[in-house]
Amino acid sequence: MDVYDLPDVDRLIRTALAEDVGAGDVTTRLTVAPETQSRAEISVKEEAVVAGVALVRKVCAAAGGGIEVQELVADGARVVAGDVLALLKGPAHQLLGIERVALNLLQHLCGVATFTNRFVAAVAGCGCRIVDTRKTLPGLRTLDKYAVRVGGGFNHRQRLDDGILIKNNHITAAGGLGAAVAAARVGAPHGLKVEVECATLGEVTEALTAGAEIILLDNMAVDLMVEAVHRIGGRAIVEASGGIDLDNVRSVAEAGVDIISVGALTHSAPAIDIHMTLFLE
Amino acid sequence: MDVYDLPDVDRLIRTALAEDVGAGDVTTRLTVAPETQSRAEISVKEEAVVAGVALVRKVCAAAGGGIEVQELVADGARVVAGDVLALLKGPAHQLLGIERVALNLLQHLCGVATFTNRFVAAVAGCGCRIVDTRKTLPGLRTLDKYAVRVGGGFNHRQRLDDGILIKNNHITAAGGLGAAVAAARVGAPHGLKVEVECATLGEVTEALTAGAEIILLDNMAVDLMVEAVHRIGGRAIVEASGGIDLDNVRSVAEAGVDIISVGALTHSAPAIDIHMTLFLE
Amino acid sequence: MDVYDLPDVDRLIRTALAEDVGAGDVTTRLTVAPETQSRAEISVKEEAVVAGVALVRKVCAAAGGGIEVQELVADGARVVAGDVLALLKGPAHQLLGIERVALNLLQHLCGVATFTNRFVAAVAGCGCRIVDTRKTLPGLRTLDKYAVRVGGGFNHRQRLDDGILIKNNHITAAGGLGAAVAAARVGAPHGLKVEVECATLGEVTEALTAGAEIILLDNMAVDLMVEAVHRIGGRAIVEASGGIDLDNVRSVAEAGVDIISVGALTHSAPAIDIHMTLFLE
Amino acid sequence: MDVYDLPDVDRLIRTALAEDVGAGDVTTRLTVAPETQSRAEISVKEEAVVAGVALVRKVCAAAGGGIEVQELVADGARVVAGDVLALLKGPAHQLLGIERVALNLLQHLCGVATFTNRFVAAVAGCGCRIVDTRKTLPGLRTLDKYAVRVGGGFNHRQRLDDGILIKNNHITAAGGLGAAVAAARVGAPHGLKVEVECATLGEVTEALTAGAEIILLDNMAVDLMVEAVHRIGGRAIVEASGGIDLDNVRSVAEAGVDIISVGALTHSAPAIDIHMTLFLE
Amino acid sequence: MDVYDLPDVDRLIRTALAEDVGAGDVTTRLTVAPETQSRAEISVKEEAVVAGVALVRKVCAAAGGGIEVQELVADGARVVAGDVLALLKGPAHQLLGIERVALNLLQHLCGVATFTNRFVAAVAGCGCRIVDTRKTLPGLRTLDKYAVRVGGGFNHRQRLDDGILIKNNHITAAGGLGAAVAAARVGAPHGLKVEVECATLGEVTEALTAGAEIILLDNMAVDLMVEAVHRIGGRAIVEASGGIDLDNVRSVAEAGVDIISVGALTHSAPAIDIHMTLFLE
Amino acid sequence: MDVYDLPDVDRLIRTALAEDVGAGDVTTRLTVAPETQSRAEISVKEEAVVAGVALVRKVCAAAGGGIEVQELVADGARVVAGDVLALLKGPAHQLLGIERVALNLLQHLCGVATFTNRFVAAVAGCGCRIVDTRKTLPGLRTLDKYAVRVGGGFNHRQRLDDGILIKNNHITAAGGLGAAVAAARVGAPHGLKVEVECATLGEVTEALTAGAEIILLDNMAVDLMVEAVHRIGGRAIVEASGGIDLDNVRSVAEAGVDIISVGALTHSAPAIDIHMTLFLE
Repeated sequence: MDVYDLPDVDRLIRTALAEDVGAGDVTTRLTVAPETQSRAEISVKEEAVVAGVALVRKVCAAAGGGIEVQELVADGARVVAGDVLALLKGPAHQLLGIERVALNLLQHLCGVATFTNRFVAAVAGCGCRIVDTRKTLPGLRTLDKYAVRVGGGFNHRQRLDDGILIKNNHITAAGGLGAAVAAARVGAPHGLKVEVECATLGEVTEALTAGAEIILLDNMAVDLMVEAVHRIGGRAIVEASGGIDLDNVRSVAEAGVDIISVGALTHSAPAIDIHMTLFLE
Repeated sequence: MDVYDLPDVDRLIRTALAEDVGAGDVTTRLTVAPETQSRAEISVKEEAVVAGVALVRKVCAAAGGGIEVQELVADGARVVAGDVLALLKGPAHQLLGIERVALNLLQHLCGVATFTNRFVAAVAGCGCRIVDTRKTLPGLRTLDKYAVRVGGGFNHRQRLDDGILIKNNHITAAGGLGAAVAAARVGAPHGLKVEVECATLGEVTEALTAGAEIILLDNMAVDLMVEAVHRIGGRAIVEASGGIDLDNVRSVAEAGVDIISVGALTHSAPAIDIHMTLFLE
Repeated sequence: MDVYDLPDVDRLIRTALAEDVGAGDVTTRLTVAPETQSRAEISVKEEAVVAGVALVRKVCAAAGGGIEVQELVADGARVVAGDVLALLKGPAHQLLGIERVALNLLQHLCGVATFTNRFVAAVAGCGCRIVDTRKTLPGLRTLDKYAVRVGGGFNHRQRLDDGILIKNNHITAAGGLGAAVAAARVGAPHGLKVEVECATLGEVTEALTAGAEIILLDNMAVDLMVEAVHRIGGRAIVEASGGIDLDNVRSVAEAGVDIISVGALTHSAPAIDIHMTLFLE
Repeated sequence: MDVYDLPDVDRLIRTALAEDVGAGDVTTRLTVAPETQSRAEISVKEEAVVAGVALVRKVCAAAGGGIEVQELVADGARVVAGDVLALLKGPAHQLLGIERVALNLLQHLCGVATFTNRFVAAVAGCGCRIVDTRKTLPGLRTLDKYAVRVGGGFNHRQRLDDGILIKNNHITAAGGLGAAVAAARVGAPHGLKVEVECATLGEVTEALTAGAEIILLDNMAVDLMVEAVHRIGGRAIVEASGGIDLDNVRSVAEAGVDIISVGALTHSAPAIDIHMTLFLE
Repeated sequence: MDVYDLPDVDRLIRTALAEDVGAGDVTTRLTVAPETQSRAEISVKEEAVVAGVALVRKVCAAAGGGIEVQELVADGARVVAGDVLALLKGPAHQLLGIERVALNLLQHLCGVATFTNRFVAAVAGCGCRIVDTRKTLPGLRTLDKYAVRVGGGFNHRQRLDDGILIKNNHITAAGGLGAAVAAARVGAPHGLKVEVECATLGEVTEALTAGAEIILLDNMAVDLMVEAVHRIGGRAIVEASGGIDLDNVRSVAEAGVDIISVGALTHSAPAIDIHMTLFLE
Repeated sequence: MDVYDLPDVDRLIRTALAEDVGAGDVTTRLTVAPETQSRAEISVKEEAVVAGVALVRKVCAAAGGGIEVQELVADGARVVAGDVLALLKGPAHQLLGIERVALNLLQHLCGVATFTNRFVAAVAGCGCRIVDTRKTLPGLRTLDKYAVRVGGGFNHRQRLDDGILIKNNHITAAGGLGAAVAAARVGAPHGLKVEVECATLGEVTEALTAGAEIILLDNMAVDLMVEAVHRIGGRAIVEASGGIDLDNVRSVAEAGVDIISVGALTHSAPAIDIHMTLFLE
């Protein structure tokens, strides 16, 4: 059961088609004879890590089912400008009807995978993971996190229910870091580790004492991170987050953290330039 | 009936909450007493044009209804780092439950409005409009296009059914630019103008002859655009598209076009950094 | 991507089946052996213009997929009493399960196409279009407007977002016809023409002055329409609406208007009498 | 729990609004200031039996909730041209946004109630019921059958699962009328009566012998109905159907049947002319 | 149109998959190579009456469509520990993805059918029916009632709209049993019989006088039931309900009632132990 | 954000109402005057641990909103026969319309909480947790797991995406227990522990060697469990599962395991007997 087969992906595609096609493509109806058959190529205009190529087939199926799709590359492939991702063949009306929906999904997911991959490359050899966050748009959580994995990253929790991450706001509401960690340790589902956000070395010590299994260093300067990693000394997994970009990610990795989480992977990845071109039979 | 009151916006918010909360916020359940009341501030960490602030109230309503919301700025306002967008007050469990969904929507829509506004500012005084495209993610079409307007831009068509734009693929399938334009003129709904994409001056001439009411200059060099605008001579609205960014948009505007459409407004606008901070009562 | 392939049509069919079948067809369960195979004919009992015949196949697919469908006529065909629209073959249980849903859709859409066609025939040679309105029932907007086109009519706007039609209520709220038209001209999306409703010759003049591109003559007497068409003199498209039926539509057309819009096309078209008859194998 | 409170009615209204408003009312946005407040009247232009007036309040609630609604008549009331059904007060943008959806529902349901009432009046004093059929459009089954009751009619079964009606196609598939009725008697849920369609007097006799509790006389001439009613002699409820209109319904009633079912009540009832007029505060 | 083909069953299965799979099966992703093919057997661990076996095919179809399913037994079959219900073949990822959803549905429906069958067996030869109630969980009404039929039981009404059952609360609200029955007889849809709940012999007499067609003896002692059946003397169908279990159901049946309704059939049937075992190709 | 505020709970309630009410409550319509006001009590007929009482308010809200609800006990309370859970007040039509849906949810959730609590009580003092499984019906996962917590149990993973549990079928498909555990350790999201199912002591040793963090003893005899717990010696969390009921659960607990998972908590908990009684004002 592939990520593409998840029930929500079909709903997302139907939403996208309904939203883009509305009551029908008036331009195509007026200008193209209904019986026209065509081939089409989906190709990239810039270097990218491919993600989402199997969605093209699902978009076509949702839009009437008359299009044959042949994927030429698999997710994870690195392509360059001019490379063709998929060949399509079918009624021109259907091809023109699915073009934008297919490209909108592809250009975004390739964007996330490619952007993630740049972070992964930047920390190569450091032994730390690049992970995502929950900073995704409605309906795209699962696909975005899939694209992060395609790009070589790892996933942080999917939702609020599958990971314990005690953040600053929880500590405020709970009345203290140590108390919050201790309460979480008592009641946590037995398969989940307890993670807590720390902004100072003092908090790191408090977290360790309370039994935190993962410590998130939030917006710390790199030299402070080095000290935190030293103090933790392997007794907890160490994650860094906050203000990390391609310019500084390697220095963070070299501070010795295990995990670097980056919200921009999903909320600010530039779209990849992808086009579809028709060729008459 | 505001854009926020559209039926699809409620569905989008429910989708976002379901996707983010899942079976419930395990961290909060374990660390924060259910009866805890709190205040919260939503504030920006960088300069921005605000869009989507009214969605915070809708997210809160969809998540149980116990939170009071007070918006401090209206959509369209220009804010700077540290400015507070909204004050919230209610059960800490609810505040922690809506935080990410509310911020994910806000950071994206403020991103689109802010990015649009930079293009609008760049062409100030040129008498041309910045418009969006259909390059949006599933479920976000209406909100994204709203954010473009908030940023000072205008909207191109919403869907395939509310505008006639004969693109290169249609011309291929139709067997010629002139024939396609002529067919569209005959059958077009009487309230829609016929637009056609042209890549060369020859095509511009062919489009005018066939009666095109809007001519889209696709990926043309600026000096060619100048010539095209001259040839068209006011007989059609002129739109430019393709490869336009903040560096070259003013030169395109100065070529004399009426409309500049930019896909990046919605597919590559960087998110604005927005946070929520809790304060105990 | 045919109108039948639109995402909302599938949802409409599932709604119709759920609503009609409920927990299952108790009569068929009690009286017909499950393994019974059958053929069936769908035929008309009166003259009609056919619309919606492809929906039969979709209803069958949504109801289990065991029925073979062969359409004998295409949408737009003119048929007479006794003509067979489609042959079906499959399990009797499935055939009896889809009968009413298929016929309910067909009898309505054929009704709309046939009724539209009578208006179209009535104005033959006058050079004006018969167009529909937004007076449709929930979920049927797209199919109804499709049936209007099948019957030889044209479509007015699909929704409130794809056409600018300043009606009397807008003028009241805007504080005047001229001001409303002028505001619309300034802000209208560049692909949409500005239309305004006028009830008097004075309003027609005001509309022209303000730059209206389409003028709707609302509930005007025919001699007044003649005068209005004369005054407009080709400077705007002229539409007539209000109180137009088969008895008076030709006189309206002969007044020289370009467009005649008729709400009854979709809200009061009598259903066509269509039946399904089973034949055992 | 009123018919208006059924879960499907809310979904129907959201569908109608989504379908009509799309991405927002462009005309109103361009011509009416957002802060404009207004009153509005919904009034009829012809004599009618009112049905559906409470839906106005639900449409307004679904569209943002800023409109106050005051119903002036209740369902079942008989009104004449000029009568006001409801007063509305609120933001002009919201009033213009719900106008068409509210009117589309009202004009249809008042149409069904009014048309039904004409049949009911035509058989006054005959002691027989006018009932509906399953000939309704997707999503409207419950509301249409409610409007029939408001008009003085009664409901036949709602779906295939809540009544046993052995029709000609079942008899074909079952291999005989008597066998079908007998099988239904054996297995029928204990709360449902067994009804069978008969086209001849011989079938009526066969149906009685097999234990039918309701006999439907299908497309019989009136004199044959008289004979059938005589033969049945009170041993079963008698229903007449097929080809019954306002011209012949009284003669059918006078034949002595208990029930007259008319598909046209829901599939061909002409819409009632209903308008909404704005008045500025 | 089988019960499995009802629109709501597909939605139920999609809900179940979404709820169980979430963002994807992390265990399988980490441990099983994507290209792994496998066979699987679904087998029972205890004696049972089978119901729902065709749902396995539908679950597989909803989860990507790569699994071949071969059912080895049909609904209604009696199986013993070790019997195989179905063979599956396909990608191991898909098989592991559908396992729990398929088993959850099967173990419940087999549970209902098996439990029902024990009641049916307990009253064998008494000439009375075991019927269900409306005591089912959201979304399972239709399938649960189907499983009751598979187990040899019959269905009471499906919903509040397809049967008339005047219960104690109605009598309270109506102001008396006789009045309530009389009102129901006047207005009841002509295909429905009027049923009323009676707790005493006096109420039974009142019900008969008012014309009740079905009398439900509610929580009566068996000797009182015998007397009630005697008094009713065939003038109404007699149903018994309340506190009936496998220990006392035969004595109730022997009291001479026609119908015994048991809520536990659907709300407390123990699940049948059913497993799926993989075998590598 | 309470479990009751989750988006899926509202959808579940709407589904339940639609499924139970259908086109409206025909009995109530025929027998109870629409203006009748009433009070009602929801009370238990047997000892129980209460769960789900807040859903009554949500069901009432979804059904028209005219009912006032006053909860008299909170979730987690232990009640005895005759205790009243909630008082309701409003239109009799609404009260009768929500009765069955509210009771169906309550009787099930109280059943799960009560049954869970019996297991919890049975292992009191042993220092081990009772946890649930994924053996729930469609749409009920979240509520069922909530009821388990109310009853004093803990939750295992919610879905396939929030816990790593390598079961026998995974081991088959992966080609060995050790390899599977090792692969999971390498790729697991950093917040999740790796759990593996073991049937023999040999497998327990293999699991420990490969780094399993949780070991599930599957269907082991109690004396074997004792030995397994001894071998594991605190190096992993120990869970027992398979064939555990109220008769043997304490002996399993006394074997020294940390966690006991029981599918029957959710798939075979007997419903609690709960009624609603109306009292006229």
